[in-house]
Amino acid sequence: MPKIKLVMEYDGSHYHGFQRQLNANTIQAELEQAIYNISRESVAVIAAGRTDAGVHALGQVAAFSTETEIPADKWRLALNSFLPVDIRILESEAVSASFHPQYDALYKSYCYLIYRKKERAVFFRKYALICDQQLDLEAMQSGCNHILGRHDFRCFCASGSGAKTWERTVHICSLADEGDWLKLNITADGFLYNMVRIIMGTLLEIGRGRFQPEQIADIIASCQRSQAGPTAAPQGLYLCSVRYPQI
Amino acid sequence: MPKIKLVMEYDGSHYHGFQRQLNANTIQAELEQAIYNISRESVAVIAAGRTDAGVHALGQVAAFSTETEIPADKWRLALNSFLPVDIRILESEAVSASFHPQYDALYKSYCYLIYRKKERAVFFRKYALICDQQLDLEAMQSGCNHILGRHDFRCFCASGSGAKTWERTVHICSLADEGDWLKLNITADGFLYNMVRIIMGTLLEIGRGRFQPEQIADIIASCQRSQAGPTAAPQGLYLCSVRYPQI
Repeated sequence: MPKIKLVMEYDGSHYHGFQRQLNANTIQAELEQAIYNISRESVAVIAAGRTDAGVHALGQVAAFSTETEIPADKWRLALNSFLPVDIRILESEAVSASFHPQYDALYKSYCYLIYRKKERAVFFRKYALICDQQLDLEAMQSGCNHILGRHDFRCFCASGSGAKTWERTVHICSLADEGDWLKLNITADGFLYNMVRIIMGTLLEIGRGRFQPEQIADIIASCQRSQAGPTAAPQGLYLCSVRYPQI
Repeated sequence: MPKIKLVMEYDGSHYHGFQRQLNANTIQAELEQAIYNISRESVAVIAAGRTDAGVHALGQVAAFSTETEIPADKWRLALNSFLPVDIRILESEAVSASFHPQYDALYKSYCYLIYRKKERAVFFRKYALICDQQLDLEAMQSGCNHILGRHDFRCFCASGSGAKTWERTVHICSLADEGDWLKLNITADGFLYNMVRIIMGTLLEIGRGRFQPEQIADIIASCQRSQAGPTAAPQGLYLCSVRYPQI
């Protein structure tokens, strides 16, 4: 059965996350409904990462199997005509039947946006964490460096995660100071549940002087969620891109 | 009775405009409710410009009279604690009892934002006009120049306006090409109903080659709304600032 890979962006503000749930708007339910509208097939859409409620995507990858004859590249326009305006398909292409958006991913990249002023914050409430406190950015960047590399990241994993292993390799973890905006870019071979948001919350504690950057190493070594900072709000988080071997 | 002047910003997405209406969320109703919560006074708030449904403000000015002893500068924090998060008071100060936010205004400045790409448009739907067509920006800028100065602007006034005179002086009318964004900045001694949106709609027709820039002069001379372009969507419009003689 042919398989279609989708690259998509969405404004997560009005959704209870990616994954289908009873009696809640989700990205998955919208996608599956749109596919049904086009092909009368009830399919299960799989995503590279299950974004939480309020989390956004610039390059989420999803896939589904279909028996229809619709050319792969036509799915983009067809789906966009049925999907709500806050979910847009950017690309659709045929992939091998064995393709799995999550398991086949080599790297995923997230970013976390912080808006640093009170003025105009009304426009960014749903698209960034609003934080106009003074932050020690140098300390935060130094904290980022302790996150790089292969570690057991259990300390940055929310309870209730079904993860079987906690080792992940973080390839990029860096802060970009863009004036009114602060942006965390983080790329890894995989992420634990809430990992980016807990890392962001911990970096913010460093920025406020409550943790020293070097403590990140101790927090990681502790393997204790309680040692890390709070989970930063969902609305600052964006799933930016997912890389696969074949691309 | 002391009078308080407010400078405020709001995300107009969820409101049916500034002006109070029966059975509809409006900025005015939220303000008056917040004032009532603080002072138990039923006041009428007057604004510099009555923004329409979906239109935003970065520097709307409003005023109300109060008999309470609350210092003028404390109203900002007090109101912000009662107002919804998409309406924020930036400044509050005492003004003379005769101050009128609309009649006393020397100039008002609006801007109109256009987002020019498909990608990431999901995040800007409510905050800009999305338009990824090719536009002749030079022609549009040339069209802007014909709008400058004192004219009878009836052609850019929506029907149903209660305006008594149609002459206004436009001091600034210019387009800024900011990569993915196109921004119209317009400053005048006053604006007719829907004037900025109709000007934007007309400039877009020029950008698409449907009107020549020089036609703006004929459109203005015609005094006919039907000669101008369509009314651009509300979500791209921002009331940026209002200037008064005393400031």
